[in-house]
Amino acid sequence: MDERTALGLLGDRLSAAGDDAAVVDGQVVTTDMLHDRTDFPDGTTRYTAGWRAVGASLSDVAAMGADATAAVAVYAAPAFDESELADFVDGASEVCAAVGAEYVGGDLDHHDEFTVATTALGDTDDPVPRSGAQVGDAVCVTGTLGRSGAALRLFERGDPADVERANALFRFEPRVAAGRALAGRATAMMDSSDGLARSLHQLAEASGCGFAVESPLPVDPVVDEVADDADDRLELGAFFGEDFELVCTVPEEALSAVRADLSVEFTRIGTAVEREGRSASENRVTLDGESLPDRGYTH
Amino acid sequence: MDERTALGLLGDRLSAAGDDAAVVDGQVVTTDMLHDRTDFPDGTTRYTAGWRAVGASLSDVAAMGADATAAVAVYAAPAFDESELADFVDGASEVCAAVGAEYVGGDLDHHDEFTVATTALGDTDDPVPRSGAQVGDAVCVTGTLGRSGAALRLFERGDPADVERANALFRFEPRVAAGRALAGRATAMMDSSDGLARSLHQLAEASGCGFAVESPLPVDPVVDEVADDADDRLELGAFFGEDFELVCTVPEEALSAVRADLSVEFTRIGTAVEREGRSASENRVTLDGESLPDRGYTH
Repeated sequence: MDERTALGLLGDRLSAAGDDAAVVDGQVVTTDMLHDRTDFPDGTTRYTAGWRAVGASLSDVAAMGADATAAVAVYAAPAFDESELADFVDGASEVCAAVGAEYVGGDLDHHDEFTVATTALGDTDDPVPRSGAQVGDAVCVTGTLGRSGAALRLFERGDPADVERANALFRFEPRVAAGRALAGRATAMMDSSDGLARSLHQLAEASGCGFAVESPLPVDPVVDEVADDADDRLELGAFFGEDFELVCTVPEEALSAVRADLSVEFTRIGTAVEREGRSASENRVTLDGESLPDRGYTH
Repeated sequence: MDERTALGLLGDRLSAAGDDAAVVDGQVVTTDMLHDRTDFPDGTTRYTAGWRAVGASLSDVAAMGADATAAVAVYAAPAFDESELADFVDGASEVCAAVGAEYVGGDLDHHDEFTVATTALGDTDDPVPRSGAQVGDAVCVTGTLGRSGAALRLFERGDPADVERANALFRFEPRVAAGRALAGRATAMMDSSDGLARSLHQLAEASGCGFAVESPLPVDPVVDEVADDADDRLELGAFFGEDFELVCTVPEEALSAVRADLSVEFTRIGTAVEREGRSASENRVTLDGESLPDRGYTH
């Protein structure tokens, strides 16, 4: 059973399990696990790890359009080094501070592999679903795409300056403020942690429509530095994922008001369209008229 | 740096980090990680694992005297088996239901070692600290001690009937109702996950007093079945830990009202005493006049 099937099974069994997060009486809670082998390339500092791990859960709160209030983490490692642990806590605390939340601690555990489990909390009276996109809505994304994929290339190069840049790219700002501004206006929303392509497919499928996306996509300039060619650029920008931007649909008439309230880049990349002729997943989302495959990062 | 030192460092850096759980605006949040090698002996079913892992976090909510509202978990394993995952979710859901909380899901992750990270939420206007014990207060414990240590012996025996009993012993009921009844009355409280002895030392140290404890301790009858001798019985009952009972101090005059509201066994095991002559940790807690060492289960 792969992870998507297993997650579907969980969703069927648990009534309160939400989209990116569960909501209980207006309280949003979401939890995540990151570990060395798959999430923290060689060269990732503990400061970056703390920032990124807690940020991933804050991003899930943002994706619900909720206000982030607090986060906790379990830090599990083969041994506890005082400066590493302090760096981790600093990173975790600062990503919380960046979105107006508080890092309130957690627990320690011994584990053969460096593993971090994070939980973030938030409040919302009006969570944004994945399923509300209407034909004609603008399909939009915050910020730029491909930073995490580019960071991985820089980590691989291993040069100290590259590794430092890679760490900086890994410390994304969770889009909590943008999510708040979009709440009540966006008709469907999730974060792009699985990649833009997969996020678009999930929103379109949940909403029962298709998306016609047009280039140029807001691919980050750093991707042009590391990509081998145009295909590789698209791979990093649309499929690699882990960028933690918000992908959403907004009615045309609300777009200008949304833009006025946002302090981050916000790009319209397409339009929600009738599903007719798009029922097969390969036709659900198109980029410049060609099928955009439903594949991406599987955590 | 050992885990206690590291936890102390975390506590110093984070103002909202509480005793067993953090409290933010009346919202209690606590998180924990359990994994195969250290927490789930051979023979532990996934149902028991789900129950126990989520129960451990619910016990931390109980230790604050808070009402438990919800829990989430990350289930990380080398592969996802549908029936194992369903059993885990059933166990997690049922331990929540047993204390009036809701299991609202979580996330999945691939990990070489079966690892579970749990987070529980609760509400309280009046969290019970570890530091409020007063000289003369009764020192008390809920339920019986030594069940988890005894379960480990039964798991080791490996006989199917023993393993089934061990699983049942591992599925403890978090003392949320008792914690609620003790809130506002207990002067200091924590759970016994690190063992009775270490819990007593932590409460006494935080409160600046000593504890004079007298036998008999409420050691579970199953311990007598598996213990080699009296020393081993004390080892399992007072030091092994992982029993998730509440250890607390209650003013003499409140004892009868507390008992009237509790539906679990509640044993007075001693009295809070002046710290004079007990400043060294070896004298802080005594059992029948002899030093009770500050050692126990280190997670």
